[in-house]
Amino acid sequence: MSILEGIKSPADVRRLSREELRTLSQDIRERLIDVCSRTGGHIGAGLGVVELTVALHAVFETPADQIVWDVGHQGYPHKLLTGRNDRMETLRQEGGLSGFLKRTESEYDTFGAGHAATAISAALGMAAGRDVMGESFKAVAVIGDGSLGSGLAYEGLNNAGHSDRDIIVVLNDNEMSIAPNVGAMHKYLTSIQRNPLYNRLRSRIGDLVDSAPQPFQSAGTLLRKWEESVKSFLTPGVLFEELGFRYFGPIDGHDIDALMDTFAAVREMNTPRLVHVITQKGRGFPAGEHGEKWHALPPGHDPATGKQITVSTGNPAYTAVYGKGLAEIGAERRDVAVITAAMPGGTGTAAFAKAFPDRFFDVGIAEGHGVTFASGLATRGVRPIVTIYSTFLQRAYDNIIHDAALQKLPVIFAMDRAGLVGEDGETHMGLYDIPYMLTVPNMTVTAPKDGTEMLGLLRAAVEHTDGPFSLRYPRDTSPDVPAAMSEIPATPYATWEVLRKGKEMAILAVGTMVGPSVAAAEALAAEGFDVTVVNCRYMKPYDEVTLAAILADHTHILTVEEGVAMNGFGAFISSIIHRQSPQVRTAVHGVPDKIVYAAPRKKQLASLGLDAAGIADRVRALHESEALAG
Amino acid sequence: MSILEGIKSPADVRRLSREELRTLSQDIRERLIDVCSRTGGHIGAGLGVVELTVALHAVFETPADQIVWDVGHQGYPHKLLTGRNDRMETLRQEGGLSGFLKRTESEYDTFGAGHAATAISAALGMAAGRDVMGESFKAVAVIGDGSLGSGLAYEGLNNAGHSDRDIIVVLNDNEMSIAPNVGAMHKYLTSIQRNPLYNRLRSRIGDLVDSAPQPFQSAGTLLRKWEESVKSFLTPGVLFEELGFRYFGPIDGHDIDALMDTFAAVREMNTPRLVHVITQKGRGFPAGEHGEKWHALPPGHDPATGKQITVSTGNPAYTAVYGKGLAEIGAERRDVAVITAAMPGGTGTAAFAKAFPDRFFDVGIAEGHGVTFASGLATRGVRPIVTIYSTFLQRAYDNIIHDAALQKLPVIFAMDRAGLVGEDGETHMGLYDIPYMLTVPNMTVTAPKDGTEMLGLLRAAVEHTDGPFSLRYPRDTSPDVPAAMSEIPATPYATWEVLRKGKEMAILAVGTMVGPSVAAAEALAAEGFDVTVVNCRYMKPYDEVTLAAILADHTHILTVEEGVAMNGFGAFISSIIHRQSPQVRTAVHGVPDKIVYAAPRKKQLASLGLDAAGIADRVRALHESEALAG
Repeated sequence: MSILEGIKSPADVRRLSREELRTLSQDIRERLIDVCSRTGGHIGAGLGVVELTVALHAVFETPADQIVWDVGHQGYPHKLLTGRNDRMETLRQEGGLSGFLKRTESEYDTFGAGHAATAISAALGMAAGRDVMGESFKAVAVIGDGSLGSGLAYEGLNNAGHSDRDIIVVLNDNEMSIAPNVGAMHKYLTSIQRNPLYNRLRSRIGDLVDSAPQPFQSAGTLLRKWEESVKSFLTPGVLFEELGFRYFGPIDGHDIDALMDTFAAVREMNTPRLVHVITQKGRGFPAGEHGEKWHALPPGHDPATGKQITVSTGNPAYTAVYGKGLAEIGAERRDVAVITAAMPGGTGTAAFAKAFPDRFFDVGIAEGHGVTFASGLATRGVRPIVTIYSTFLQRAYDNIIHDAALQKLPVIFAMDRAGLVGEDGETHMGLYDIPYMLTVPNMTVTAPKDGTEMLGLLRAAVEHTDGPFSLRYPRDTSPDVPAAMSEIPATPYATWEVLRKGKEMAILAVGTMVGPSVAAAEALAAEGFDVTVVNCRYMKPYDEVTLAAILADHTHILTVEEGVAMNGFGAFISSIIHRQSPQVRTAVHGVPDKIVYAAPRKKQLASLGLDAAGIADRVRALHESEALAG
Repeated sequence: MSILEGIKSPADVRRLSREELRTLSQDIRERLIDVCSRTGGHIGAGLGVVELTVALHAVFETPADQIVWDVGHQGYPHKLLTGRNDRMETLRQEGGLSGFLKRTESEYDTFGAGHAATAISAALGMAAGRDVMGESFKAVAVIGDGSLGSGLAYEGLNNAGHSDRDIIVVLNDNEMSIAPNVGAMHKYLTSIQRNPLYNRLRSRIGDLVDSAPQPFQSAGTLLRKWEESVKSFLTPGVLFEELGFRYFGPIDGHDIDALMDTFAAVREMNTPRLVHVITQKGRGFPAGEHGEKWHALPPGHDPATGKQITVSTGNPAYTAVYGKGLAEIGAERRDVAVITAAMPGGTGTAAFAKAFPDRFFDVGIAEGHGVTFASGLATRGVRPIVTIYSTFLQRAYDNIIHDAALQKLPVIFAMDRAGLVGEDGETHMGLYDIPYMLTVPNMTVTAPKDGTEMLGLLRAAVEHTDGPFSLRYPRDTSPDVPAAMSEIPATPYATWEVLRKGKEMAILAVGTMVGPSVAAAEALAAEGFDVTVVNCRYMKPYDEVTLAAILADHTHILTVEEGVAMNGFGAFISSIIHRQSPQVRTAVHGVPDKIVYAAPRKKQLASLGLDAAGIADRVRALHESEALAG
């Protein structure tokens, strides 16, 4: 039996020797590589924090001590040590373990997260809660260096640093973006900082300054400057010290001894402190050893080589269609710029970035800044295209209203992963963008039915100068294989498209729901029930002429969208219909007001009736209830 | 004629001598004090930046050079110098000058803002736009020290500092929160920094380090540390230097010579640079001279003494009722904590803060952190009440979903200034909270009809542990004078209140619209038209029993709310009605999908038909259209 198999809870970890902790780390690494070869997932982050996770659970008294893992990409080793080893095979599967941390999954998961940079704020809340309730546990936030670009992390640091509260931030630095020089000098500094003599010296300098007599006040200021200077000479973490933290590090994040000694020393203190740990993302993974940069894996690769076994076939992903079209429109127009938030790969903008580096802006995990920055660009005649996943763009909601929309600036929002996102689960769902974009004044709100129309809407967006313009598309493949951007005209503004002309009942479908609605209509036609299908590609402003025509010769309308039905497109267009033609009956079909959990996207769609069969059922049910009512 | 009267545009400012600029500053100060005694407004910030504004327009080539004023509270002197002196009397009045800056008002207003901390991001966007378009102007962001607590400002600094782009940030420090020691030492540092010798020395150190031969690489690292250390010894702005800025200051913000010299030198550089200016808020205002801290004034005070002439009478403001109740509930329950974002006074939370400092958290202008922090508190059994204006809570939209709601944590959101906010205008409108809160899963959404019910809902919120709970109330006086909190029971969960029983037509009213709806019903009753009025204090979950009863004996429903009608409560409840009782006709009344500009709140309500007369008209119109249709 491996050591890992004997670990039922972190209490077991705390009984191990240092040597055994090292072996345990090796066990964890092997287990992760093996299990993720079947389940897929964010393995890179997990492999990077194996020793860090072991050391944290070995030093801190979990679950009493609260460890908050930022994002949760790093949470797989933590799951293995907290009683979930035997369920790891169910990772990211329906009804299985979440790909992130989750309060309902384990008492060791103190705070769930799928979005980055929340950990410091949450841990500070726990620390404050502890003090309010008179408790005495420790609160530890573990946050990656990429998250430090986020304003939320800064707000957390700024508030924690000035709070004087007992809180620990572990900075998991795997990009080397903050401290590129890890070497003897840093090891030396680290050992100095853990040295009681050095700590006494530091506080002596402070005492010296504080006790300066009245006539020497200006000398006191000079001394204080000198003290800061001495500290900053000894400490690479000046920025953190300025924000009120005691800084420790950088520490080799794969050295169990260094981690254990530092955490043991740091745990006993009681003011804000930051431990800077350097880790290697993907450490131990075959492909990772070759320096390949990667973040997440789909299921089905060879654990020995890290190579993908399955190969995807068929139509291109929406993201790929978008990325190609974007690069082409960048070549057409020199005024187009692209903004993304730490996701040039995930959003398909890398090709544009490579071709037009001067017009490409990766702002890091800073969505709010990205939108306000884009609004600034727009004031100068640039056509900025903000490309951010629907779920992450929620972070810029106020910037969208306050900076882009109220000023009617032509900022374009391309929202990838709008709708149901599959295995990433509830934190990553793009279900709210239709409701929130519809209520933004001056905003054009659109969704394409396929890749070709996406490019047509993108062209329309770039040509539209009268306010912001939004475009949503799913984490899915396009139903078609689009031509080159140069052959695709702009989709005419504020128009719908009648795809099928039936009678009595019309389906008003949005984006991804257009194809399944047509398929549903074809199935219904085979039953002798002839239904109209309209592609409502412009949700706002809507196509008044087409709507009036539909209302003139239909008695029933079913709206279908891939987003929360409560106050989405269906609710919006229903209000208009009831005002104009109160005799027309409407029904809204979409995602209900409840949380949708991880499962394959196709299953999620089917279980919510958002596929051809489900839509056809809705039409039949509506028809029957009416027949009964009539 | 004063010098100010001769200024038609900043070009005129640039023709003045230093002595004349000083006189101009005096003119501006007198004009501001005089005009604001009649118009009211955010005079304190304006008086603090008189010399700063004069120096900026004297050195920079506005409007070609882009000056971005953060928030715009500081914008009054800028308005006086940019052709708007003769319209200052119309400040904050309907059809008059905005209380903030506004792109449509002047070509000198490069970017409008009512929310804090957007300026750096916007200016960086302009700088990037300049570089994309091959232009050559300067971009200057002027931002207050309070805004530096905002993550957005940090994201802007972080992106700007690493961009190497030609951008200037002017830090207007009037709270002394960043550099408390302004004295001889700082003046000395400032003069050093403007000294060409010092600048050569600084770059020499860099060259020295860069040219270190291979064998001395580790020595090179040491040298680099030493270089940073030397800089930090000479420079108080270590934090900004770490973020990639050249730091200048602190400078006396009322010293025209110091400002002019610094700006002239800084303008000629072309990398990110930050000028730290110390100003005195309210400088020159009689009340301000006595050290009184204030931010904004209502109209009607004596310009000679600063004392208020008019005295408000009548019922207490909602904010005051809330603040009193909050302090009382704080005394009742030791688990209640309050979070606010830089507005303890404006949100009425100061009494709670004074009584329970250990349970009061002012997080600064950091709304996102505030909500995630509150979610952390909630995990520890604390009952956090996040008290933030509706418009500012937009900044925490993702935190509300991701941290509070998805985890079903019982965080309470008390949204002051929900609805129409009067003279502050479009950037401060609280019109979106009903739509965005309704679509948040697990969220209870409420609004009280008066102060007593607000306290009842607050009690219900504190007793509700099954997920987040939101409560909205207006910038207005309460229609009643509530009793003490101890005498007010919790408003029963998910209930409505039938206030008046009529027939055929029912008004479903929300919050502030309940009173006017009852008044409308009384007016209609006098005409022999008997209308039902329901107080829909719980918007979600709604009162299913009462709704069913209403639907059973009414044929028409009018919903009324003070928020965007598109996808608000009316749209939501209409979808439910159409599903349950398709024969019932509904109409939605609220704020249309357009921007509402500054005007007195009463006028805004009246012009949108959101008062008793307007609601009665809507009922009559609906009745008539139906009669015609029937």
